[in-house]
Amino acid sequence: MSASPLPSDRRSRRSAEIRERIFRAALELFTKQGFAETTVEDITNAADIGKGTFFNYFPSKDHILLAFGEMQIGRLRELVDSAKHSSKPIPEFLQGLGRRMTEEPTRHPKIVRALLLAFLSRESVREAMADMQKRVLAIHAEIISLGQRRGEIRSDLGALEIAQVFRQAIFGTLLIWSLYGDGSLPERIHSTFNVLWAGLAPRNSSEPRPIPLMAPVRAPLFF
Amino acid sequence: MSASPLPSDRRSRRSAEIRERIFRAALELFTKQGFAETTVEDITNAADIGKGTFFNYFPSKDHILLAFGEMQIGRLRELVDSAKHSSKPIPEFLQGLGRRMTEEPTRHPKIVRALLLAFLSRESVREAMADMQKRVLAIHAEIISLGQRRGEIRSDLGALEIAQVFRQAIFGTLLIWSLYGDGSLPERIHSTFNVLWAGLAPRNSSEPRPIPLMAPVRAPLFF
Repeated sequence: MSASPLPSDRRSRRSAEIRERIFRAALELFTKQGFAETTVEDITNAADIGKGTFFNYFPSKDHILLAFGEMQIGRLRELVDSAKHSSKPIPEFLQGLGRRMTEEPTRHPKIVRALLLAFLSRESVREAMADMQKRVLAIHAEIISLGQRRGEIRSDLGALEIAQVFRQAIFGTLLIWSLYGDGSLPERIHSTFNVLWAGLAPRNSSEPRPIPLMAPVRAPLFF
Repeated sequence: MSASPLPSDRRSRRSAEIRERIFRAALELFTKQGFAETTVEDITNAADIGKGTFFNYFPSKDHILLAFGEMQIGRLRELVDSAKHSSKPIPEFLQGLGRRMTEEPTRHPKIVRALLLAFLSRESVREAMADMQKRVLAIHAEIISLGQRRGEIRSDLGALEIAQVFRQAIFGTLLIWSLYGDGSLPERIHSTFNVLWAGLAPRNSSEPRPIPLMAPVRAPLFF
């Protein structure tokens, strides 16, 4: 049996506990009533703490989303490290990642919208998000690079380029789905993965045809 | 020579002119100073009209984005109709679409962010956006279906499913790029198209391997 914890341990444990309580209460409220509609007061009421305490842990509501991102990056890091020491094919691993993204709490379009909004909002948050994106991208590139060395992923493209396309496709899927917020997310992720993997070229051709480059076109198109 | 226009023609031409002037002024301001940072007053000043006139044409700032969307859909419709009567391979046509999306005014991350924000904002705008998405999707599905009939696109997946993955990948590319707003958009679109087309399976395999389905995993992941 270890000795009873020192006061400083107790303090930091208590601190982690409060942070977790705020975090959980906030995510639950974002899910239930939406991010924009949730005030800091709603969160402090739900977490049963004072407003001053809240700001000791999170300088703003947006920081809760950033903390959420950090948590997810930590989880991704662990998953990738374990995949490195497993013989499971990397494509299967990546498919599993996509699948995880369709699970709770991503079933809640309000949270997904809040996260995507944070991407597009105030400069400071966007910079933090951009920084996170770069770190996530580097982790994905690691695992794709491993897949390339194992001959499971095409290696005529750079790992970072593939990681970028992969993430962009997943984010676009989340974005379009969040417009509807229906039950179609797992199916959409499955389709995205399927096409990313096998491509759109006709299945009976032995090798996908290269697309000839086109002359630049005039009219701009957003959609 | 035709007769001089009737008063009602003149009125409707004048009306289209004012609408166009408001529209151009608004897009320019959104590009320069951002969507959220642009007030209706900024727009009416730039277009040199009264506030009441503005609201005769657009019930809100968001409606300018919706009008922009309608304009783009009209353009897409024309392009698809012309592609139908051309012998140009559909993959090339789709690549051209992606390329157009990287041109002016999409080079302006502030407008892209405004458009994406409109997706995620108030219910009423989101519903209008969701409706537009469905119409754009149907147009894309038409052209993909044509590509399938011509044997240029794999036909073991539905045209609507392929259209969805295609659009989601393009939107995700725009979303992630808009975080940085740098010069990387054409390159990103090119990579996305390249991977969507040829897939990620190793290039020396004669046929992409099917990915075995995985058991559902536990931990949720947003990224």
